[in-house]
Amino acid sequence: MQAKPHIDRHYDDELRELRRRVLEMGGFVEKQIADAVRALIERDAKAAEKVIERDHIVNRMDVEIDEMCLRLLALHQPAGRDLRFITTAMKINADLERAGDMAENICERAMELSLEPQLKPYVDLPRMARMTQEMLQDSLDAFVREDVEMALRVCRADAAVDALMEQIFRELISFMVEDPETISRAMRIIFVSKYLERVADHATNIGEMVVFMVKGKSIRHLDEPPPDL
Amino acid sequence: MQAKPHIDRHYDDELRELRRRVLEMGGFVEKQIADAVRALIERDAKAAEKVIERDHIVNRMDVEIDEMCLRLLALHQPAGRDLRFITTAMKINADLERAGDMAENICERAMELSLEPQLKPYVDLPRMARMTQEMLQDSLDAFVREDVEMALRVCRADAAVDALMEQIFRELISFMVEDPETISRAMRIIFVSKYLERVADHATNIGEMVVFMVKGKSIRHLDEPPPDL
Repeated sequence: MQAKPHIDRHYDDELRELRRRVLEMGGFVEKQIADAVRALIERDAKAAEKVIERDHIVNRMDVEIDEMCLRLLALHQPAGRDLRFITTAMKINADLERAGDMAENICERAMELSLEPQLKPYVDLPRMARMTQEMLQDSLDAFVREDVEMALRVCRADAAVDALMEQIFRELISFMVEDPETISRAMRIIFVSKYLERVADHATNIGEMVVFMVKGKSIRHLDEPPPDL
Repeated sequence: MQAKPHIDRHYDDELRELRRRVLEMGGFVEKQIADAVRALIERDAKAAEKVIERDHIVNRMDVEIDEMCLRLLALHQPAGRDLRFITTAMKINADLERAGDMAENICERAMELSLEPQLKPYVDLPRMARMTQEMLQDSLDAFVREDVEMALRVCRADAAVDALMEQIFRELISFMVEDPETISRAMRIIFVSKYLERVADHATNIGEMVVFMVKGKSIRHLDEPPPDL
């Protein structure tokens, strides 16, 4: 095989660097969410504050990845698979930034909840948090490996997270009905479960985009659940 | 001035067509949200069902606009302002699709609420709906006119929507505390206000992207509110 000209090697390096940056941002956002949920469970307002302070790092990563994608598109004018890879990275970036915002929202509720007596021990919420984090991680693995099967698994996992949220919701409603004293605390916990559900939605979006990137056609908006491939 | 070669005229037509399609989709999504809120207020489950049925049109528009952007990037390899325009259209498209999903969510709650006695007359919610629709409309106008001042106005309007949501939230909490019978209805209305808040967030995202598109730099993630230009 012939050696590639210098400009192409440089281009390949940049694509690799883009992949690395998206993964790095994904890892950081996952950690933000894990730390936010831990701050909630441990009723640690200081830790929650620290997560909020770190959100600017996610935001800087977002801007930098966006700029990197635009530079790659403008300088190398990719087509086909590379084009889809770069535009997918831009969109994944937007989803990750918003998933990061959810960590911030969880911390705001955690700080409010730390001022009041604990309503009940958290059981389903940490489980839901683990599921959503796993979905986020798998969606990014699917992206870097261009693994359609893994991406589809992420999309299918979303239903389980939704079911868990429904369960948390119903349980907290029954708390509120029995004792109106618990209403404002229960509401905050319901919001936390909503934020986690939105993280799972972002992971699902990423999974769908990966399928589109690899197969060149959309599985979004089929009326049926994603097919087994 | 020299006549442009044929391929460029074709390219300009395609950019115009892209702009038209994004606006068309935005108009459709706005109408979906307006119809969803009307179905809620008029307690019209049939109308709510129709909005949900129409969501596939938003989804089809999403896929088509995405494909059009990829085609433009691959065939014409734009740089500078055109590149930013097309990648911005791709991202606006994603925000519009998700704003459309909020109309669907509102309708689901509207259908549930139509089965129970009315909790209270809606006052703040229609106001909040009007504000968010106006933000969405203005953000798209700002996009097609490349109007930074208008885009920044949209970003600044987000705080008013958030404040209105807080007010709705506090009022409904007091209903729940006074009478636990109202809890499940009040929760559904709180969720509707959350959905509208998310529509306003999407409009704000679009506003921020327009500023980036025109000025070539990001106003996202400044620690201060967007500056007066």
